[in-house]
Amino acid sequence: MLISQTAEYALRAIVSLAERHGQSVVTQDLARRTRIPAGYLSKILQTLRRAGLVHSQRGLRGGFVLQRAPDKISVLEVIDAIEPIRRMTRCPLDLPEHASGLCPLHRRLDEAIGQVRNTFASFSIADLLDESRRGVSRGLCDTVAAPAR
Amino acid sequence: MLISQTAEYALRAIVSLAERHGQSVVTQDLARRTRIPAGYLSKILQTLRRAGLVHSQRGLRGGFVLQRAPDKISVLEVIDAIEPIRRMTRCPLDLPEHASGLCPLHRRLDEAIGQVRNTFASFSIADLLDESRRGVSRGLCDTVAAPAR
Repeated sequence: MLISQTAEYALRAIVSLAERHGQSVVTQDLARRTRIPAGYLSKILQTLRRAGLVHSQRGLRGGFVLQRAPDKISVLEVIDAIEPIRRMTRCPLDLPEHASGLCPLHRRLDEAIGQVRNTFASFSIADLLDESRRGVSRGLCDTVAAPAR
Repeated sequence: MLISQTAEYALRAIVSLAERHGQSVVTQDLARRTRIPAGYLSKILQTLRRAGLVHSQRGLRGGFVLQRAPDKISVLEVIDAIEPIRRMTRCPLDLPEHASGLCPLHRRLDEAIGQVRNTFASFSIADLLDESRRGVSRGLCDTVAAPAR
């Protein structure tokens, strides 16, 4: 897998919140919609909250809401909040002769990492919703239909 | 990290064996050159052997040798031998409505996986050696200089 299970769960949760942007969604409801174990989801939401991607509202209508509009959140930001896809900025063997330039293997690995980061930075959560609405691909990874708009 | 530590170790080991293609290298020597813990490297070499990428020679001059020429081994094959970067061929939520087509999130993730697989398939272990010899990048991730050719 290119990204971890946890990062994939975080993306599902953000997409599901984006489908209901402006509404507050409680963890149990979000867990049911995204089929993520509630305890696990709760930890992911805390991490996303610390990263400034969601915030929680207290009270009767409390729950989680996206902190920003879906077009202002890239897929990369969600992944990086959970488990950053780090560039290989230095030789993992700490070889002094590679201090100022990586060897061909690590340079190629770093280029691939850069390519993936660019891909994930190039589309927003809103792009995923738009594709779904335009019928480019089917629905969203959400097990409960979104309310009619 | 895009690939696991184990896959990165396997690539280091294969690159180091490729530098000495035709020679048999014992695990202890390979561990020293690549700075991989010997016990860990030993397990990786068994996995690479089962995948048909290296073979072991017994006896006084025993050790590990690449099974094929470095230009016949792609970076992707080494990674796939350790921990395959699998395409997302089916909905991870097993939603019946996504059985015949992924949702936008999972389709985009799958495309990124495909892009990474293509990148890693497009260059061979020999390409890494060639770049090093042409001085495109510096040396190899091997802590002991290769014998003169």
